[in-house]
Amino acid sequence: MADSVKHLAVLGSTGSIGQQTLEVLRAFSHRFRVIALAAGNNSDLLKRQIEEFKPRFVYLQDEQKLHSIAGAGYEILPPEAMANLPLVDTVVIATSGKAGLLPALAAVRAGKTVALANKEALVMAGEIVTAEAKQHSARILPIDSEHSAIWQCLNGETTPAARLILTASGGPFRNYSLAQLEKVTAEQALKHPSWRMGRKITIDSATLMNKGLEVIEAHWLFEMPFERISVLVHPQSIIHSMVEFADGSIKAQLSYPDMRLPIQFALSYPERLANPQLPKLDWDKAASLTFEPPDCDSFPCLKLAIEAGKQGGTCPAVLCGADEAAVELFLAQKIKFTDIARLVEQTLSGHQSISRPNLEQIIEADAWARQQVLNYL
Amino acid sequence: MADSVKHLAVLGSTGSIGQQTLEVLRAFSHRFRVIALAAGNNSDLLKRQIEEFKPRFVYLQDEQKLHSIAGAGYEILPPEAMANLPLVDTVVIATSGKAGLLPALAAVRAGKTVALANKEALVMAGEIVTAEAKQHSARILPIDSEHSAIWQCLNGETTPAARLILTASGGPFRNYSLAQLEKVTAEQALKHPSWRMGRKITIDSATLMNKGLEVIEAHWLFEMPFERISVLVHPQSIIHSMVEFADGSIKAQLSYPDMRLPIQFALSYPERLANPQLPKLDWDKAASLTFEPPDCDSFPCLKLAIEAGKQGGTCPAVLCGADEAAVELFLAQKIKFTDIARLVEQTLSGHQSISRPNLEQIIEADAWARQQVLNYL
Repeated sequence: MADSVKHLAVLGSTGSIGQQTLEVLRAFSHRFRVIALAAGNNSDLLKRQIEEFKPRFVYLQDEQKLHSIAGAGYEILPPEAMANLPLVDTVVIATSGKAGLLPALAAVRAGKTVALANKEALVMAGEIVTAEAKQHSARILPIDSEHSAIWQCLNGETTPAARLILTASGGPFRNYSLAQLEKVTAEQALKHPSWRMGRKITIDSATLMNKGLEVIEAHWLFEMPFERISVLVHPQSIIHSMVEFADGSIKAQLSYPDMRLPIQFALSYPERLANPQLPKLDWDKAASLTFEPPDCDSFPCLKLAIEAGKQGGTCPAVLCGADEAAVELFLAQKIKFTDIARLVEQTLSGHQSISRPNLEQIIEADAWARQQVLNYL
Repeated sequence: MADSVKHLAVLGSTGSIGQQTLEVLRAFSHRFRVIALAAGNNSDLLKRQIEEFKPRFVYLQDEQKLHSIAGAGYEILPPEAMANLPLVDTVVIATSGKAGLLPALAAVRAGKTVALANKEALVMAGEIVTAEAKQHSARILPIDSEHSAIWQCLNGETTPAARLILTASGGPFRNYSLAQLEKVTAEQALKHPSWRMGRKITIDSATLMNKGLEVIEAHWLFEMPFERISVLVHPQSIIHSMVEFADGSIKAQLSYPDMRLPIQFALSYPERLANPQLPKLDWDKAASLTFEPPDCDSFPCLKLAIEAGKQGGTCPAVLCGADEAAVELFLAQKIKFTDIARLVEQTLSGHQSISRPNLEQIIEADAWARQQVLNYL
């Protein structure tokens, strides 16, 4: 087992998480074999990745560019089919946005080990995805620093956790007043103080929407009621999350903010691999760790998300759709930073939730929400 | 298994750890049965404990007072014999000082689960105690906040730890200069900022000798080379220790400083029991956690202990004996606070270590060291 080679499909290989996944695989080429690579539209990078990792199956979402990567020795296969390949044991879902939902579902239905970086799969369709995972004995391993931290802290415990404590950096605008937030530009919002991430998630971190989505994810991943999930602002981003147990003992996971660590742990689990490229915490530099409650008045997205999670049904899909549309508008400089929460709230309050929705209803709710945001505009 | 009742011998029941052990047992009377209680000389308290917990076997080290606890319905039995009772599955060694060594050895030789609060057993005779534990399939579970924290963090991990990071409060005299330390009184030293403990260990905390002894304990308990054990001063005493893994991930265990938590975890393991008496961490009050390197110039005992641990042989026994004698002299106001380290250092440097000593040689080395301290005086 220890020396067995894992066979991977990496979906979303040219995004931030996808690239960092390949960095980890590069460091342990004797342990991992890349069978399939799928990307969105970055054909140049995908080409270089194909040359280096020599997968058998490849895909590019952008059909116009797809022909440019076609060549001898590999086959074109869509992501859902990659997730279902008998040759593949581990599927990395690094696809961002709702495009990750169907591949994630395909992978759990195929009973694979699913290293999941995509939030939307669990936020929009947590009930369906986790039920299918159980039915097909698929294991979902989180690639998100917070959920990885919780998972690491739960490891070996036989009594269920009493409380999950998700930490949040607080984003670049922590301590900003509402008036200051009104004037925030996309450029400012894209400068995250501690994490190297994609554009959408960086804006979501600045609004605290990201933390709200993580609360919903944690709810599904760890079967934890919303009432027993807390959020704590920890600006240094050293403690990535914590678990409180029945006896009051708390376990925390710490490291410098570097996504390669949770990626590597999901891929090497249950083992841990020594990787000199990963930074070791220097206690001279981590001399003070501080904590404060989140400011839900200035950052209403956190509450909106948790409320949508509690409501359930199609509400989380509407939350995701509205947020994605609003963030796009903000990045295109068509709305203000504070309009993101406003548009999401308006969309949610105009939505008639469907309880226990099927996949079609979830996707419809997401599309409806996106359209609503554009209509409000 | 979950509902099985554990049968306990509590050795050192009237000391600080012994009393807190009985507090835990009182809260879960349906889970634990006290079979045997042994104490030093506090006959009044032992009597009350006997009335409440109704053990079958009792003992008091003070033979003059032993007759006063004799009565119908229970039998007098020395601690080593208690540790060997077939009726007992778990032996709590809460005896302080070298008096804990022989009962601890008896318990591991009898293949019991040994909840070990006594430091000297592992510091003086770590090689013998851990070898006997392996041979007799005895499990040693630490009752010390630091080692319990490390044990909790190691739980479920399949790859050995890369580094153990023991935290230290720094004691009441953190940031004192050597000149200030010269004038410290026993009364001042007995006021520990965060822990409720016995007198000897409170002084050892003030000199950082306690942390040095814990490094030696950790070396034996977790089979970790001294080079991979660090000490980090953390004045708030919220993080009780940490483990760094091969991938750079660190796990930490947090709680308010309360010995009942590690005691309870050792007794309930692998389960965790909800105990409303144990305080839950309030993040409004734990808003800042700070860390700094220990000051080995002002507190030379830490280095002396680690050096004695590395030397091995009879050096740790000499360290323990010299320290215990010196602390007694300090508490009796016969020497200065800074003389403790001075006397321990002199004694160690005058000692000819015996490698791989037997138990007799260890006990002789301890006695020799105590006498040396008195001679220097």
